[in-house]
Amino acid sequence: MKKSGALLVCCSLLLPAADIESQYRDVSKKIIEAALADQEGLDRLQYLCDRIGHRLSGSESLEKAIQWSAAEMKKAGLTNVQTPPVKVPHWVRGNEYATMLAPTVKKLPMLGLGMSVGTPPEGITADVVTVASFDELAALGKEKVQGKIVLFDPVWEGYGQTVIYRATGASRAAELGAVGVLVRSMTGRSLATPHTGGLNYIAGVAKIPAAAITVEDAALIHRLAKGGVPVKVKLMMEAKTLPDADSHNVMGEIRGSEKPEEVVVLGGHIDSWDIGQGANDDGSGVIAAFQAVALLQKLGLKPKRTIRVVFWVNEENGGAGGRAYRAMLGDAAKNHVAAIEMDGGAEKPLGFGYGTGGAQRRRTTANAPATPVKATSAASFQRAVDIGKLLSGIGGGQMTPGGGGADIAPLLAAGVPGFGVQTGGGHYNDWHHTDSDTFDKIVPSEFRANVASLAVLSFVLADMPERIGDIE
Amino acid sequence: MKKSGALLVCCSLLLPAADIESQYRDVSKKIIEAALADQEGLDRLQYLCDRIGHRLSGSESLEKAIQWSAAEMKKAGLTNVQTPPVKVPHWVRGNEYATMLAPTVKKLPMLGLGMSVGTPPEGITADVVTVASFDELAALGKEKVQGKIVLFDPVWEGYGQTVIYRATGASRAAELGAVGVLVRSMTGRSLATPHTGGLNYIAGVAKIPAAAITVEDAALIHRLAKGGVPVKVKLMMEAKTLPDADSHNVMGEIRGSEKPEEVVVLGGHIDSWDIGQGANDDGSGVIAAFQAVALLQKLGLKPKRTIRVVFWVNEENGGAGGRAYRAMLGDAAKNHVAAIEMDGGAEKPLGFGYGTGGAQRRRTTANAPATPVKATSAASFQRAVDIGKLLSGIGGGQMTPGGGGADIAPLLAAGVPGFGVQTGGGHYNDWHHTDSDTFDKIVPSEFRANVASLAVLSFVLADMPERIGDIE
Repeated sequence: MKKSGALLVCCSLLLPAADIESQYRDVSKKIIEAALADQEGLDRLQYLCDRIGHRLSGSESLEKAIQWSAAEMKKAGLTNVQTPPVKVPHWVRGNEYATMLAPTVKKLPMLGLGMSVGTPPEGITADVVTVASFDELAALGKEKVQGKIVLFDPVWEGYGQTVIYRATGASRAAELGAVGVLVRSMTGRSLATPHTGGLNYIAGVAKIPAAAITVEDAALIHRLAKGGVPVKVKLMMEAKTLPDADSHNVMGEIRGSEKPEEVVVLGGHIDSWDIGQGANDDGSGVIAAFQAVALLQKLGLKPKRTIRVVFWVNEENGGAGGRAYRAMLGDAAKNHVAAIEMDGGAEKPLGFGYGTGGAQRRRTTANAPATPVKATSAASFQRAVDIGKLLSGIGGGQMTPGGGGADIAPLLAAGVPGFGVQTGGGHYNDWHHTDSDTFDKIVPSEFRANVASLAVLSFVLADMPERIGDIE
Repeated sequence: MKKSGALLVCCSLLLPAADIESQYRDVSKKIIEAALADQEGLDRLQYLCDRIGHRLSGSESLEKAIQWSAAEMKKAGLTNVQTPPVKVPHWVRGNEYATMLAPTVKKLPMLGLGMSVGTPPEGITADVVTVASFDELAALGKEKVQGKIVLFDPVWEGYGQTVIYRATGASRAAELGAVGVLVRSMTGRSLATPHTGGLNYIAGVAKIPAAAITVEDAALIHRLAKGGVPVKVKLMMEAKTLPDADSHNVMGEIRGSEKPEEVVVLGGHIDSWDIGQGANDDGSGVIAAFQAVALLQKLGLKPKRTIRVVFWVNEENGGAGGRAYRAMLGDAAKNHVAAIEMDGGAEKPLGFGYGTGGAQRRRTTANAPATPVKATSAASFQRAVDIGKLLSGIGGGQMTPGGGGADIAPLLAAGVPGFGVQTGGGHYNDWHHTDSDTFDKIVPSEFRANVASLAVLSFVLADMPERIGDIE
């Protein structure tokens, strides 16, 4: 029931706040203490990183990670542990290299973009035209682009703003007859480190191979181009897409004591790109979510609703896991009380983006569609704020409009309220999709704080009287 | 004459300060204005980086850089432009790679250490023992080191403190029968970036091959070792040292109007490692020094003493250029009024380390011997401070005890007062000796400020009545 009038709104906002705080203060303290002292979660993340490593959809190591994850969930005493099957795209990189042939010979460290087609076996050798924007590309026109390799070297304006050149540059260049694409790595900080990531071919446009080169080499070629110095590059990529592979989501839960059919789901994605260790993207997300639930279990807490952890598969190059989970639920999606995703690394947690609705929805990752759903009520948002206050001691409870993530986007589209973990994130983008996304980047105290905030949020959402999305 | 008594010391310090400031304020302003507006220096540095590139001793590109430098000095109107011959070590890297074979197969991005011997053509395959210190190595003893590859993964305590493991780790491990050495890259910040650098074999100890791996991979192997997981690595390096090569220092000057035989020399090193572009190490040093002199020439300034810019060769793996310059001078070294070196990158200049003497001398680079020479008088140091005040507008005039650099160390050992450029240096060590030491790291305003401070300091030292080292 929608309330109106200043006084009523005031009370509807303030009274539950006091209730939630007083009701869950002690248990939150207990959960936070356990999380901040926990070593098991870090050990699990280290195992995933060091002993299994990166895990691209279709790879053996992904399946190893999935089986290990299910076994760990069982070890932790979770129930209903399952690995429901998901068909995933199976892209393989193969050998690849890029070499500048003129004006001097220089190896260009690179990573082919995920889902790119390969080159012919002998590679592609072509002159390079460099542009900073799609406008500059259009201004060149077919005459100057035909038969060339196009380098996109846009000014870095942040991941969300700049990733469009990685995502669609290949097709945009192909429309003008380009034979290959290079793109500056999607980062603002580089130590000669190439960043991979997915591309999306536009239907009906010729598929041409595309790779990311380092910020340094993109800048070099751009400077040479501005100086009128012709640049020639050889690009060789064996990349190809095989038939879809068999894979799995992973899930386990604490069954609700009163309303087991109602579910708070939390998780991240178990797949990663085929480089580094996928430590922050998204090993830390899945393991923090899992460890949050494992700690609730260890503490013997019995939430009224079910808390389920899910490791979605194939976030990086398809999103099949998130869609399959949604499809698996069918009508039961309406019983999902909230969906929480952590997919931005395990730096110091600031809080959560929360929302269900319309204008408040925003993309939290490059792959997440910005699906409009029903608007979040002010009272529902205020409740999220009040829950966040339970996390004030560790600084992880700030609620901002937003929410979501690529894996839970299908749930949000079905009307499930979404929370997306937000962190300080000062360095996440330096590492992600690179060989440097490794366990040494995980700061134990920050990882533990993320576990704490996920555990408190999911427990309160699962235990409090109202479904958060229904508070009006 | 050494003065005594508080009043006299006071006056001897204060009066010249006022003199120096009033005498050189206007010309300093003019020099600084010209430097801050200058584009030519940046264009020269860009050419050196982009069109010539890295330039290891013995390489064709180094000789190209040397010839280009001499031609640019002539173009700038410098006199006595020379390229005196210097024999330099000729180490070549060849192909190289390292692969972890157990517990999983993983490529280890690496760079062989400069002057390392190579492996047999089939490489070396051995179990790895990991240590954090020489004490840990000694504790293992011959039994556990014999036949192994030793990984040094010390805690990063800064370049000066930690580089000892790169410099002497190979010989220390060889003493215990190790067959190869890996060392964590010498940096506190890594994005999966290997850093090369020179090693020094200890005489009489077997020479074994040594390479730097990334901070990430060193940490991984260290974690595995701590967990009792055996690690096996294959190391292949074609590195070898050829007969010494013919190379050159480069020098040019503005001849002094009154005491041309007295010389203020400034410069850096023209060689670099064989990766990246040597932009900050030390392209920016040589070009900033050159441009400082070029601007004085362009402004038509006529210092009383000669100002000479020198691009010393072979700083990175031998120091032959600095020694050859000293030898070339013979007795004329006593006419060198001051030596200024810039070899710490072109980040925002803070000031200079200044000193000639004893306890005040310190290493400013890993390769610089800490040679004790005659003590700097308080009055001489105060004069440096007073000259520094002319740079207060650009923040580059702070004088601290110290001074020097690897290339001017032989001059300082001969009693020449030394100045070493000191910069903010927040990121120099992230880049140096890596593929990321490239022109994009040069911030134009900061480079120009370095040119300004070198130009003012060298002009005043060359023009003021006293030789700075003689002020007592």
